[in-house]
Amino acid sequence: MSTLSPSTRAIMPSHTRSRVWCRDHTGRKYTYDQATGLIRKFHGHTAPGLIIGTKMVTLAMDCLPKDTIFDAVCETTSCLPDAVQMLTPCTVGNGWLRIQDLGRYAVILYSKREGNGFRVAIDPAKLKKWPEFYAWFFKRKAKKDQDFNRLLKEIHAAGETVLNVRAVAIKPSYLVRRSKGAIGTCVQCGEAFPLAHGSSCRGCQGQAPCETK
Amino acid sequence: MSTLSPSTRAIMPSHTRSRVWCRDHTGRKYTYDQATGLIRKFHGHTAPGLIIGTKMVTLAMDCLPKDTIFDAVCETTSCLPDAVQMLTPCTVGNGWLRIQDLGRYAVILYSKREGNGFRVAIDPAKLKKWPEFYAWFFKRKAKKDQDFNRLLKEIHAAGETVLNVRAVAIKPSYLVRRSKGAIGTCVQCGEAFPLAHGSSCRGCQGQAPCETK
Repeated sequence: MSTLSPSTRAIMPSHTRSRVWCRDHTGRKYTYDQATGLIRKFHGHTAPGLIIGTKMVTLAMDCLPKDTIFDAVCETTSCLPDAVQMLTPCTVGNGWLRIQDLGRYAVILYSKREGNGFRVAIDPAKLKKWPEFYAWFFKRKAKKDQDFNRLLKEIHAAGETVLNVRAVAIKPSYLVRRSKGAIGTCVQCGEAFPLAHGSSCRGCQGQAPCETK
Repeated sequence: MSTLSPSTRAIMPSHTRSRVWCRDHTGRKYTYDQATGLIRKFHGHTAPGLIIGTKMVTLAMDCLPKDTIFDAVCETTSCLPDAVQMLTPCTVGNGWLRIQDLGRYAVILYSKREGNGFRVAIDPAKLKKWPEFYAWFFKRKAKKDQDFNRLLKEIHAAGETVLNVRAVAIKPSYLVRRSKGAIGTCVQCGEAFPLAHGSSCRGCQGQAPCETK
């Protein structure tokens, strides 16, 4: 199941590959190889951002007091939301995961009730020790010039050492349950929409992503 | 694995419960009971919106020419994105699923290359035949007054008959690969961020979702 080349695998001690890389919210543990398998299954390919992402989500869960019922915020749309969706009950569709796209590779898990939690991010200063990881993260190399096996090897070896974690309090607005309000039928398209959007739906207001053929 | 009460199950003919309810992009088929099991596993609970959502995504896939490599757009944040993530390779994290929140319960699957595809939505006119489904969809009943078993039974019985499907062309902007552009280090927080956002990251510009404790 490993995506590492045979030569790369050969130089990694077997105890490293068999160690726990991440876990899900039920406590089920995954080795690095199992985690990359899970990533390919859900995300379609071995995204480096998800490999470190699964470590980030695991670290945040480990910091929370046992049995905390938590929600999640990702500060980026790239990869990281999938790490949350793979390892926790929080999804975009159930609303327990929100994406606030700040372009920062960071995830926050926080108590659904009190809002206390932990924010895990990649620390650029710590990343400097890992040239391929650094170059990938800061987009310093064109894709064709990247050494993918070395990149994965560095992420694997670096693990938690490139992460920062800090205790945070989520802003109160995130603790309020959002409601769409009353639902009506759009006079133009005839579909259901939240009446708070106006007299017609946003699609008929020009925001539709497609046109009928 | 069924969420239906014994009495509800008793009045549903067994051939209905054993029929294919939905399928994933690999062609793997799920009965209604298997689909609700999958929903609970990914989404945490038996969301009615996801039951009809898995049917919607299946219908859209069935309409696409065989072997089409497709992307997805959901016109709502509620439930439906999870149906896409459960049954297709499109996720929020890999960018193949985008959410354009128009508050309409509709999903579009379209060819990644040409942009041709199909939009599936719930048709309020067709829904009127199913009082509990209609009342739930239009939020006409408080949760405590809903008959959950009847709601599921109506969704199950209604299936595709409440859906509209039409051929569409996605707008050209959705076919362009988005790039974050150059990445730099924020002078305030020291984290990586897209330089296009300004001299400091959006988090340091006041959009951070949390505060350090």
